[in-house]
Amino acid sequence: MSNLLIKNARILDGDAADILIRNGAIAKIAPGIAAPDVATEDAGGSIAIPGLVDAHTHLDKSLLGWPWYKNDVGGASLTAMIENERNMKTRLGLDPHVQSMRHALKSVAFGATLIRSHVDIDTEGRLRALEGVLETAERLADVVEIETVAFPQSGLMIREGTVELMDQALAMGADLVGGLDPCGVDRDPKGHLDAIFGLAEKHGKGIDIHLHERGELGMFSMEMILDRAEALGMKGLVTISHAFCLGMPDHLRVEAMLARLAALDVRIMTTAPTSSPAPMVKQLDAHGIKIGAGNDGIQDTWGPYGNGDMLERAKFVGLRNNLRMDVEVKRALDICTGGGAEAMAKPRRALEVGAPGDLVLVDGETVVQAVVTHAPRRLVVKGGHVTARDGRTLVGAP
Amino acid sequence: MSNLLIKNARILDGDAADILIRNGAIAKIAPGIAAPDVATEDAGGSIAIPGLVDAHTHLDKSLLGWPWYKNDVGGASLTAMIENERNMKTRLGLDPHVQSMRHALKSVAFGATLIRSHVDIDTEGRLRALEGVLETAERLADVVEIETVAFPQSGLMIREGTVELMDQALAMGADLVGGLDPCGVDRDPKGHLDAIFGLAEKHGKGIDIHLHERGELGMFSMEMILDRAEALGMKGLVTISHAFCLGMPDHLRVEAMLARLAALDVRIMTTAPTSSPAPMVKQLDAHGIKIGAGNDGIQDTWGPYGNGDMLERAKFVGLRNNLRMDVEVKRALDICTGGGAEAMAKPRRALEVGAPGDLVLVDGETVVQAVVTHAPRRLVVKGGHVTARDGRTLVGAP
Repeated sequence: MSNLLIKNARILDGDAADILIRNGAIAKIAPGIAAPDVATEDAGGSIAIPGLVDAHTHLDKSLLGWPWYKNDVGGASLTAMIENERNMKTRLGLDPHVQSMRHALKSVAFGATLIRSHVDIDTEGRLRALEGVLETAERLADVVEIETVAFPQSGLMIREGTVELMDQALAMGADLVGGLDPCGVDRDPKGHLDAIFGLAEKHGKGIDIHLHERGELGMFSMEMILDRAEALGMKGLVTISHAFCLGMPDHLRVEAMLARLAALDVRIMTTAPTSSPAPMVKQLDAHGIKIGAGNDGIQDTWGPYGNGDMLERAKFVGLRNNLRMDVEVKRALDICTGGGAEAMAKPRRALEVGAPGDLVLVDGETVVQAVVTHAPRRLVVKGGHVTARDGRTLVGAP
Repeated sequence: MSNLLIKNARILDGDAADILIRNGAIAKIAPGIAAPDVATEDAGGSIAIPGLVDAHTHLDKSLLGWPWYKNDVGGASLTAMIENERNMKTRLGLDPHVQSMRHALKSVAFGATLIRSHVDIDTEGRLRALEGVLETAERLADVVEIETVAFPQSGLMIREGTVELMDQALAMGADLVGGLDPCGVDRDPKGHLDAIFGLAEKHGKGIDIHLHERGELGMFSMEMILDRAEALGMKGLVTISHAFCLGMPDHLRVEAMLARLAALDVRIMTTAPTSSPAPMVKQLDAHGIKIGAGNDGIQDTWGPYGNGDMLERAKFVGLRNNLRMDVEVKRALDICTGGGAEAMAKPRRALEVGAPGDLVLVDGETVVQAVVTHAPRRLVVKGGHVTARDGRTLVGAP
């Protein structure tokens, strides 16, 4: 937990001021702060925004640092993509610690200060991916906060032994219980959901489940998730990632589901996907549902896209939701900063006294201009500790 | 029409070779070409791709170079956005020549060698926007080929005098007749379409009509467009931009329309939009329909997004269409290069002997990596003439 004084930053679109961070938290924001005992950075009039938050990614999957991976599988079948990934991981002998270091530091260079990573748990890789990501989380503790979700990517009920591995993963330190398409992948929604909610109860941890199922199938799975959240009193402890089904056209059906999600304080994580239905920000906002955003996997066997930049992701959130007004684009940024942290049940990243000392200095004319151009990052600060400068992290990647 | 020898470029993902351009066209591609009479550029092993093609933009609309425009209007109503733009243009006193120079050169810096620009024709701005863009097209003739579409942005039938202005615009040199949502904006599909097809017939020019109308309304307007194209023997001379309705879920309905579009060789221009239905590349490809892509307006009163980069647009085409395999991402790039030129009825931009000497050198490991990262442009060449180097155009913007 460091101290730092940043001179002459524009606070979002406000006036220039200095920001004093003491013991890792924002202590004062005002013009002309004097703190001779504290290290000082000159923002040079650049814009300060809160630390970026990637609330949904997969640090163990990226192929960063490897020769270009030629994708011949495509997006035709989810099962084919899952099989291909598991095979490629073994064939390439990927080291989850090395890959997660590369990915996390790439995100940090773009301004990430908080990341939630799903981590594959399966009967082939067993707990190796989690061990690697936990090692990365420990090594980078001063650089970026990494939260882990034990994620049964290859299925839970269809691969015997996975529930036990999930149990071990949670005992080892995974922060949340993951899940995946209880109908679409596991073909056993009751079995899948009973298992993950059982693990959550046993370990006293929250849930973050991938739900790609669309339309009525997704709504059915969502109802089963909410039934269990309600029965177990898990208000505020359940997150649904992707939630494509909330983008279905049946407005009344979606509205009723949103009301129920809001009542149970379920959080929604989205990548603002371009080729599938998606939860709509304004519609969720009207219900007060907490929303986070994430880059998902980047440059992995699933596809070549993605770079770890949550400011670019804010642009995608804006584009996907047809957010054109400045005030709307700022909401997209909030989802990728303070709002995302709140959706993760973490302290809100904000340029306010008392908030964590996490911020990013970006070159730009206005905040919205910085978002839509994903402008260069001049400085990244986590807990008062400088983590990246001019797009380069201070800690080197392996 | 210049001569140029480019040494040591990787031809798409192929082997390193030299490219000789003579009289503006590619004369030879081979290793170790000697041409002592010709200026030489060393590609240094970077990747050569064909010149980028923006087949749908609005050079007269961008606010580039102006202080940040705060958007308070948003995307709620098309009419409100149209009114707002017309008012802002007058209030700011935008000079269409200056703005189109800025926009076109920004695109050139990213590798554009061919641009189709719609240009507003209305009873307030009258022909001023077209005059400005035509001046830009003339000034930049050696830098980028600019084609213009006389575009009745504020409506054709609802604003008396617009048809006459469109007539003058075409006489002045606009290359194509534009149109806009004959139902949604003009509330008179027969009147609108009879007028623009009448102008096309009178001037012997093609049509490129904006069609944002969704679902069955768009299909209805599209049928009326095709009826006229068929009756007037305009095979290959009609383009429909946006064509959101082709993204409707009714597969049989869309397939039947695609068959008719293919039979009339109608071309489709798309921005691969993220917040609306869109024509699907693979579905159109199955019918052999020519597809171009465009950035649409960039940083204007309509919204803050866009930067003129057609390599980034290729990424959007890939994302929107769920193109994950390398071969699929290359098709997305083709739509933004050679395929886009073909959709504009221009010679195909390709790295082949006989093709126009338009190419871009990009840093990158592979073509797909260059697309998904929209990698830095080292050199842009049009007709053998170097137009930009390291992201800067040789001609300065006003």
